[in-house]
Amino acid sequence: MTGPGTGARPIAVTMGDPHGIGPEITVRACADPRLPAPVLVIGDTGALTRACRATGVDLRVRPVGDATGADRTPGVLDVLPTGPELPEDLALGTVAATAGAASYAYVRKGIALALAGQVRALTTAPVNKEALRLAGVPHPGHTEILAELTGTERYAMMMANDELRVVLVTVHQALREAIDALTVERELDIVRLAHQALARRIPGGRPRIAVAGLNPHAGENGLFGREDLDVIAPAVRAARAEGIDASGPWPADTVFLRARAGEFDAVVAQYHDQGLIPVKYLGLEHGVNITLGLPFVRTSVDHGTAFDLAGTGTADHRSLLTALRHAAELTPER
Amino acid sequence: MTGPGTGARPIAVTMGDPHGIGPEITVRACADPRLPAPVLVIGDTGALTRACRATGVDLRVRPVGDATGADRTPGVLDVLPTGPELPEDLALGTVAATAGAASYAYVRKGIALALAGQVRALTTAPVNKEALRLAGVPHPGHTEILAELTGTERYAMMMANDELRVVLVTVHQALREAIDALTVERELDIVRLAHQALARRIPGGRPRIAVAGLNPHAGENGLFGREDLDVIAPAVRAARAEGIDASGPWPADTVFLRARAGEFDAVVAQYHDQGLIPVKYLGLEHGVNITLGLPFVRTSVDHGTAFDLAGTGTADHRSLLTALRHAAELTPER
Repeated sequence: MTGPGTGARPIAVTMGDPHGIGPEITVRACADPRLPAPVLVIGDTGALTRACRATGVDLRVRPVGDATGADRTPGVLDVLPTGPELPEDLALGTVAATAGAASYAYVRKGIALALAGQVRALTTAPVNKEALRLAGVPHPGHTEILAELTGTERYAMMMANDELRVVLVTVHQALREAIDALTVERELDIVRLAHQALARRIPGGRPRIAVAGLNPHAGENGLFGREDLDVIAPAVRAARAEGIDASGPWPADTVFLRARAGEFDAVVAQYHDQGLIPVKYLGLEHGVNITLGLPFVRTSVDHGTAFDLAGTGTADHRSLLTALRHAAELTPER
Repeated sequence: MTGPGTGARPIAVTMGDPHGIGPEITVRACADPRLPAPVLVIGDTGALTRACRATGVDLRVRPVGDATGADRTPGVLDVLPTGPELPEDLALGTVAATAGAASYAYVRKGIALALAGQVRALTTAPVNKEALRLAGVPHPGHTEILAELTGTERYAMMMANDELRVVLVTVHQALREAIDALTVERELDIVRLAHQALARRIPGGRPRIAVAGLNPHAGENGLFGREDLDVIAPAVRAARAEGIDASGPWPADTVFLRARAGEFDAVVAQYHDQGLIPVKYLGLEHGVNITLGLPFVRTSVDHGTAFDLAGTGTADHRSLLTALRHAAELTPER
């Protein structure tokens, strides 16, 4: 049976910060013949209509009342309008509290639908962290919002592309604070989450998880800082005692190339840039973020709001399309 | 006029930690037909003879008394014996004070020859920082030794490969200490050194120098730490006021791919792993280190002593060969 309201559950896509490229990459991805599944966009109908115009995408924006209204009708973009209605003359490319509040509303709605099982997964377009802050959102980014609103205490962010999988111990914190936040417990949690996420996908069920060191040369036996000896090494030993194939701490400047060469299935990185520099180095268009530990599958683009491109119709939608593909691959259709 | 003692000045090569792969990659590089210039090896004749055996390199080790003894006699490896004579049964693959002391003696000799103009440049095989420390050497690595022994106050380390040039603001320090060491003055010094080093090689004389941020998203307007706003941004402004084409702080997770794509001629990285992760990501064999600010040209391999490979004869000498090529390209023959 096909037709409106009766097909497979859609993947919910939040359109992200209305002042960024989110609306444009969303409509582009939905118009792409490679779109892997029906999609329900959570956002603003006006902003998405204008995004179609800016990108030259020929889709009719159709507001729907709930997730069951979304189908794969050709030429139609199903949108669940959410949050405050936005003005027609959006200040594209600027940081604004109104845009932050709207993007937060989209994410909350997406989480509610995913928790209720009304959508099969959640895929998110980029939000702006400063806009969220101006809107009074008490979380610096998507991952933290997702954890809070789903009551998830142990979670992690995995970035994946065709040749590398990286899981972060710390994410959106000043580097000094990220170092302070490293504990044996946190390291062990992240190694476990990486293991669990990959155990089903790796032949033999024992993914090889490398843990990157914090300091240069992984501290070179305590010569450059103690964290590698006192925090990371004990966590690796504890993980191994649980039967996880973990190793490290490895010098961060070579662990990623070793993983790329096939020696490891994933690398646990200690802080944001340590993990994202190698994942992004070869280009942005194939990257995807996956949140580990949530009660549903959530994937995301691995780039930001790109305010400088907003409204130009030129933003690349391939990361969003890849995020949708991963969401579809990780979830059953119905 | 050719012949022993009358040819072009050699490049001095220090053989590095005798317990590591240094001796093996040294003899391999010297036997490679791509060797760009006559070489004088500073090291231990016994260790180098055994390295020839381990690698199957067919060179006769010939001790010489000074730099003028080195020439390009086929089949001969000219060695200036320096430092304590090493035992025949070296404990290959281990950290030892004796090995640290020997590798330090080689570097000191190389510096003396370079300062005296007896060699045309200095290229170094890897030392082990823990061995240096055990030997009582008050510097954590080559770069710091070179700065101290040449009286150079403002220097920096540039890593280069075929697609990326990176200059480090901090190098061998615990990450916490590296953050503490960032100052406007230090940032500005590094940007200037990068500019000076590249101004001669970049068409137009105005290399485009990107400065990477310290915190995630370069601090996202102060949301994740103040260093990007308070330390890096003022240094970039000061450099621009001097006519240098500097920009930043840029988010570190994308600045390197932008440089790789041709947008910048060099990236100033705030700490060791931030700069070395992208430089090494695509493989070690083409990388080279160049010390900026010294009174002579010094290049180096971009890998370590690889104790696990020492004595096996399998270590890859291409980084050392590339370092020699850069040394030759940057210096006149006589």
